[in-house]
Amino acid sequence: MRVAPSTVLVFLARMVDDGQPHAMPSLLGLLQSERAAFDALVAHAPPADIAEALRGLSPADATAVMCALSFDVAVKVLDEPELEGHRRAITERLPPNLAAGLITAMSADQQADLFRELTAGDRERLLALLDPATRDTLSALLAYPRDTAGGIMTTEFVAVPGDWTVARVLAHLREVARTKETIYAVYVIDPASRRLEHVASLRELLQADTQCLVRDVAPKRRLISVAPRDSRQEAARLIGKYNLLALPVVDAARRLVGIVTVDDVIDAMVADQTRQVQRLGGMEALEMPYTEIGFAAMVRKRAGWLAALFLGEMLTATAMGYFEHEIERAVVLSLFIPLIISSGGNSGSQATSLIIRALALREIRLRDWWRVALRELPSGLTLGVILGVIGFARIVLWQRLGWYDYGPHVLLVALAVGLALVGVVAFGSMAGSMLPFVLRRLGFDPASASAPFVATLVDVTGLVIYFSVAFAVLRGTLL
Amino acid sequence: MRVAPSTVLVFLARMVDDGQPHAMPSLLGLLQSERAAFDALVAHAPPADIAEALRGLSPADATAVMCALSFDVAVKVLDEPELEGHRRAITERLPPNLAAGLITAMSADQQADLFRELTAGDRERLLALLDPATRDTLSALLAYPRDTAGGIMTTEFVAVPGDWTVARVLAHLREVARTKETIYAVYVIDPASRRLEHVASLRELLQADTQCLVRDVAPKRRLISVAPRDSRQEAARLIGKYNLLALPVVDAARRLVGIVTVDDVIDAMVADQTRQVQRLGGMEALEMPYTEIGFAAMVRKRAGWLAALFLGEMLTATAMGYFEHEIERAVVLSLFIPLIISSGGNSGSQATSLIIRALALREIRLRDWWRVALRELPSGLTLGVILGVIGFARIVLWQRLGWYDYGPHVLLVALAVGLALVGVVAFGSMAGSMLPFVLRRLGFDPASASAPFVATLVDVTGLVIYFSVAFAVLRGTLL
Repeated sequence: MRVAPSTVLVFLARMVDDGQPHAMPSLLGLLQSERAAFDALVAHAPPADIAEALRGLSPADATAVMCALSFDVAVKVLDEPELEGHRRAITERLPPNLAAGLITAMSADQQADLFRELTAGDRERLLALLDPATRDTLSALLAYPRDTAGGIMTTEFVAVPGDWTVARVLAHLREVARTKETIYAVYVIDPASRRLEHVASLRELLQADTQCLVRDVAPKRRLISVAPRDSRQEAARLIGKYNLLALPVVDAARRLVGIVTVDDVIDAMVADQTRQVQRLGGMEALEMPYTEIGFAAMVRKRAGWLAALFLGEMLTATAMGYFEHEIERAVVLSLFIPLIISSGGNSGSQATSLIIRALALREIRLRDWWRVALRELPSGLTLGVILGVIGFARIVLWQRLGWYDYGPHVLLVALAVGLALVGVVAFGSMAGSMLPFVLRRLGFDPASASAPFVATLVDVTGLVIYFSVAFAVLRGTLL
Repeated sequence: MRVAPSTVLVFLARMVDDGQPHAMPSLLGLLQSERAAFDALVAHAPPADIAEALRGLSPADATAVMCALSFDVAVKVLDEPELEGHRRAITERLPPNLAAGLITAMSADQQADLFRELTAGDRERLLALLDPATRDTLSALLAYPRDTAGGIMTTEFVAVPGDWTVARVLAHLREVARTKETIYAVYVIDPASRRLEHVASLRELLQADTQCLVRDVAPKRRLISVAPRDSRQEAARLIGKYNLLALPVVDAARRLVGIVTVDDVIDAMVADQTRQVQRLGGMEALEMPYTEIGFAAMVRKRAGWLAALFLGEMLTATAMGYFEHEIERAVVLSLFIPLIISSGGNSGSQATSLIIRALALREIRLRDWWRVALRELPSGLTLGVILGVIGFARIVLWQRLGWYDYGPHVLLVALAVGLALVGVVAFGSMAGSMLPFVLRRLGFDPASASAPFVATLVDVTGLVIYFSVAFAVLRGTLL
């Protein structure tokens, strides 16, 4: 496939535009021979930059560029998680043999990611082109969902028997370095059972006597590991807590089946953070960049939750219906409805975001719900009193200053609003803090609790609290 | 300082309770001599676990345990970011000479973190006990704010001149490994100017000919680096994108001043995520665990934003005041107020969370605001039409089923609600998507835009839209 000069130009422009223009001095100026510039550029560019530039091209152009790269560079580019979401379109268009070659040379975890993107048909077609060993590994990895440790692990780890000397291990590392995801952690396994026995870092190996046995290199310590079905968040937590560069994944028999490397964990953390922020905003996670998702797909991701929340919020209309006569008699009460229910929603949204994070960081567990409730009740009451006092003062002040006339019973109205705020804000805190627990108890992700979700929950109750308080305070006067 | 048996018991219980009980078989059963159990436990426990258990003790008990640890283990524990927020209380209580010894042996970035926690008085007192070199490094690091690359970098990197052979570099690595944060990246610098010229990984060194010069080991490539004042998010982004284990920090003259390591970046990412979720929930970030923050401090962090939002939301009462007569004439309109304004808030919250993430991930930049606006307008209109149709149907259906009587002009009321929803939801999307841009333009962090902030912004306008639409639709009938 020949790369059209225009494709190269677009590609070059994107690379030069992308982030660090200072690093590529006036490349566009030197474009006498585009192909020469292309070669010079990709020779020194990090694969992640090439991958990012490819994202901006049409699938056909991106494929053309891939074909123009040397095999080694093309493998590295295809191996970049930066290319996620675009690999399928490129792989489908590549000559089948080149595709198979590139895929075989990719790291196992990225192979699995690519295959997850493929349609069933393409998957079959490409699997058939791979050698049996690659195919088996791939099938094993594909069995794990994307959000588990198994779903982001790779199988290219260095495993040696415990009776090898350091010198032998170092020689082995030199030999296999090219094909392994990391050589900075060496796993000592029992050759017969493949059980993981010990881990030594390359740092420790380098400092050790070369005749020392690898099993004696590192001090005996608790092995940190995950099971393949553990969540990838758990893998991230362990890597972060214990400052690991790679985390071993072991099966029930403690056999080493893969490793999760720190760079994969970072990618997963970024993706999970995006997902969490979007869900906290009250929508389904996009799972692809905002700039790349289609209009229909985006509307779908947003419409679902928006409609669900709308249906829930309809209960407010029902609740208001019950108080229609109160409103008719005292229209002044309706003026404060948005103020009061939004305050409940806001305090609930604060409490929910606090608890979602505390649960995610394992600062608290499901069984701690009552501890949280005991803490949120006084917090909510305190916050409610603060807002209640402000609300009371606002109404009285406006009346005194003559900015608005709330009628003869202004003090009682202000009292009703103030007291309702105490109740609504305290209820908001409680509901907001308990929602993540309830969701986890029901088997959902606590992070499905969103600010709009809590607000919707709190609105109906907020109305009931407001009108009940108002009825108690204003009975015999306004009501 | 002697460790009281009760302290040991509490400590042991916490360690055994903490996360992975299976790894410590029936330790509590074997507690005949507590001290023996303590020694056995800390000998094999990862420092992060010891640090975590210390968090649960009183400062006095934690200090006693620190004194009971061997110096090497104590340094590692004090070096753990897990101990953040507790280091000050412990350091203050340690015998001054032990404190100085431990601090000198810590890594430079963690020293800086500890000193950031200290009060000015303690800082002076402890600085005086350190040797001049440590003191100078520390002062330099403390000059950088905590949220910059300089604020999380460390100075223990391996830097060698380019004309060293691989054999010499490897010998050097063996020698200095104990005192360096990482030996997996070797920085090639010009000895005279200390300018960073090249980076070689230990993997590349190990694969190279031992007589090769270190400057020729790795292929020439673009050096990825940050400036000390760049944000730590930028450091995290680069480490994630280019799969680095350490990122060089260079000053304006391209002199190497420090490195940011991947484990520090992960800690920073977790902290930043917590901060972002809490701010998205509409509060100031706690900056410490929910379980450890005091009641007063937590209420302060929440009350500020809650009161600010409340003051903003007061405008709804003012807006409602303008429509009091309309409400009096058509109380039925008030029933849908919560439904309509919350829908605007929800669609705004979705748009804000989308844009906050897209900006953080650099998918879009400030100058792309109009592209986003052109996208959010049709999205918002589409979502508005969906909700508008549901709202219209809901009102008509309830009337037909006899569940509620909305009066003789039910179709017009339903039409007013439906049309208002289109306007409010579309406006919510626009306001929610533009808010992060406006904040960034004004020099604030776009992530200060919270779901409650957007909802508050949208509520007043939502009311105006609703009553204007209702007035247009119902003039001559209800109004």
